[in-house]
Amino acid sequence: MTYTAEIIAIGTELLLGNVTNTNARDLSEGLSGLGINVYYQTVVGDNPARLRQAVEIAKGRADILITTGGLGPTYDDLTKETLAACFGIPLVYHEKIGDQIRAYFEERLPGAPVPENNFRQAHLPEGCTVLDNACGTAPGCAFFNQGKHVIMLPGPPRECRAMFQNCAVPYLKKLSDAEIVSQNIHIFGMGESAVEEKLQNLMQSLQNPSLAPYAKTGEVMLRLTAKAQSEAEARSMMAPVLEQVKTVLGDVIYGIDVGSLEETALRLLLDQCKTIATAESCTAGLLSCRLTSVPGASAAFLGGVSAYANEAKTELLGVPAALIAADGAVSDSVARAMAHGARERLKADLGIGITGIAGPDGWTEEKPVGTVFVALETADGTYVRNLRLGADRTRVRVMAVHHALDMIRRYLTGLPVEEIGA
Amino acid sequence: MTYTAEIIAIGTELLLGNVTNTNARDLSEGLSGLGINVYYQTVVGDNPARLRQAVEIAKGRADILITTGGLGPTYDDLTKETLAACFGIPLVYHEKIGDQIRAYFEERLPGAPVPENNFRQAHLPEGCTVLDNACGTAPGCAFFNQGKHVIMLPGPPRECRAMFQNCAVPYLKKLSDAEIVSQNIHIFGMGESAVEEKLQNLMQSLQNPSLAPYAKTGEVMLRLTAKAQSEAEARSMMAPVLEQVKTVLGDVIYGIDVGSLEETALRLLLDQCKTIATAESCTAGLLSCRLTSVPGASAAFLGGVSAYANEAKTELLGVPAALIAADGAVSDSVARAMAHGARERLKADLGIGITGIAGPDGWTEEKPVGTVFVALETADGTYVRNLRLGADRTRVRVMAVHHALDMIRRYLTGLPVEEIGA
Repeated sequence: MTYTAEIIAIGTELLLGNVTNTNARDLSEGLSGLGINVYYQTVVGDNPARLRQAVEIAKGRADILITTGGLGPTYDDLTKETLAACFGIPLVYHEKIGDQIRAYFEERLPGAPVPENNFRQAHLPEGCTVLDNACGTAPGCAFFNQGKHVIMLPGPPRECRAMFQNCAVPYLKKLSDAEIVSQNIHIFGMGESAVEEKLQNLMQSLQNPSLAPYAKTGEVMLRLTAKAQSEAEARSMMAPVLEQVKTVLGDVIYGIDVGSLEETALRLLLDQCKTIATAESCTAGLLSCRLTSVPGASAAFLGGVSAYANEAKTELLGVPAALIAADGAVSDSVARAMAHGARERLKADLGIGITGIAGPDGWTEEKPVGTVFVALETADGTYVRNLRLGADRTRVRVMAVHHALDMIRRYLTGLPVEEIGA
Repeated sequence: MTYTAEIIAIGTELLLGNVTNTNARDLSEGLSGLGINVYYQTVVGDNPARLRQAVEIAKGRADILITTGGLGPTYDDLTKETLAACFGIPLVYHEKIGDQIRAYFEERLPGAPVPENNFRQAHLPEGCTVLDNACGTAPGCAFFNQGKHVIMLPGPPRECRAMFQNCAVPYLKKLSDAEIVSQNIHIFGMGESAVEEKLQNLMQSLQNPSLAPYAKTGEVMLRLTAKAQSEAEARSMMAPVLEQVKTVLGDVIYGIDVGSLEETALRLLLDQCKTIATAESCTAGLLSCRLTSVPGASAAFLGGVSAYANEAKTELLGVPAALIAADGAVSDSVARAMAHGARERLKADLGIGITGIAGPDGWTEEKPVGTVFVALETADGTYVRNLRLGADRTRVRVMAVHHALDMIRRYLTGLPVEEIGA
């Protein structure tokens, strides 16, 4: 059977927007990997009546209830009391946990008395499985009652993640007999709606494996997921669908299960022992920053220039002042000269030049906000994309960098560089 | 009256853990700022039956339903259809929105036909208020029916945030007769727990105005909020508390209601007609990118160098190779030389040099991962911070840039530059 879980995150700080509910994401990902369906996530404050209502609703629609938060020692930590009451189970004092709490404090504050409220953490639902907290004092617990599995995890993300992995996953694995495997298909150069239009029939016809799109800033990701008795079986169910997607979309697919465009570009550079240098005007370091966000970048990325002022373009990159005066700083020729300057001064195999108008100022009739030239100079010649990237400053910068990374990727894999997608 | 809102985030990707529900946090924060209580957040997948169930539950316990997601052009974007059905309202085609979608595509892909499914976005509940999407094509909408306010916002966080601020906030403000005024107190150089410890009594004693902490990466923000009959009254209630907070925290407060550390630093540079140039090794352009994320940066930021390889430090910044050989690339002296090179080559008033070990490789016993030197060269001399920023690569880079921006801020406001906080 396929189990259904509901995640209930408890904490008024979540409802005030003081913190982001990363636990729900972490747990959802973990549950999905176990083949357990999550149909709802709920967030409720430190309020027993409203928590009780949320638990009653979840009991009516899920097989497994997983709570996070409210296990601590303070008066507003009411999760165990409330869940136990919902299932009609009394709380009992666990001698062993009481001793652990005493030992924890003795180790940290020798000789000092343990604040009495800490022993609240030793009261747990009768007959439950105690889940050890590897990173804190509040233990979690699990029980099975009225046909429902209940698992209570702590709120601090580090404690929640550790207890889920160490204790909840083994508990849940015993419930399931299927393996779930996913593959992410990464796409740049085709919008979400165009991707879907091409794949609509396929996506709608598939059940297992399933295929679903995920939009990211300026790119698209498809996730292919299969459920089977073994990982090998799941993979063999996915293989023909993956081939079909590749045939339909072609070379806008930049990778399968890769981290990002920058990681893809960097891996290609490293694999081919090629080095790169960058010259950025409107993106002012975003490309160099993104490339070096990947550990190990130093073997391929030599350096870059954020050439914002024209003087920076001439002084640091040797772009002729006369060229800037004649063609304008945002032009095909200046992008080429910037790529050349970076490549030559740092003796790199590839040089990138980016110049454009991110806005809101600096535009003309002829060159509106969003006009960007990206040049890639290589031993084989120079390639330029002349782009219109819209009016949003942040997006213009991000997309310009995406295009630069895509040009590197396409050049290093022997694809036409100036074309955007197939 | 005090209204109660429920946030319903729609998207299977949230239930699979592919993305974090940052929209719920953003909206909760915004609603809290308007004096609207959020008692529940719900997440549900792209499934009309389950969405319908979530909406029915929310109708029973909240005055305002705010949805995010499922407004796009694809077949699994079913929010409008489902919400309209829950309230018994038909969807109608909005000619004007159809035209806008056509214009949006014409601008980006001139001459190409608009994929037909995009026009699904022009179907909206009859009689609704259309909410413009400043950053995308999917409009939102709002209506009042059966005693409930329904507001539908898009799923992409950038679009959701913009539409909430531009459209939902004015809509919600009309519901309330009280004025809610907030001030954000921005802090760098003191951790969240230290801030809380210093202000614990004050925070607990306050009701209206209230004071609450919000953690951000490497900085802390306090929000002071007052509710009154008029804005002037709210402000006069807040003024003495703000003074008290300033007295307790001192000069780690870098601004009140400012956008960010980079905006603060850039405003100071612009106000004082000072220019800046940067030289970055481990941060490789993150500082220049952050400074230039602020529109108008070009009047102060001249340019920068991402000097990753040692050759880039010597070639582009004139750092003596012998100095690097003697002291190591990550050293006080190289940070100074980088700041000097950037400042001199671009004839800037201020020069920043950042060199460090972001990890995971490149560390030694003496200089562990997280060792960073940040130097600021000015006409008055050079200042250096020697930092240990932990073992997380991303965090090391972000914190190094925070420190550089803080040094600029402290220098331009006449505070000791090398000290971190008061």
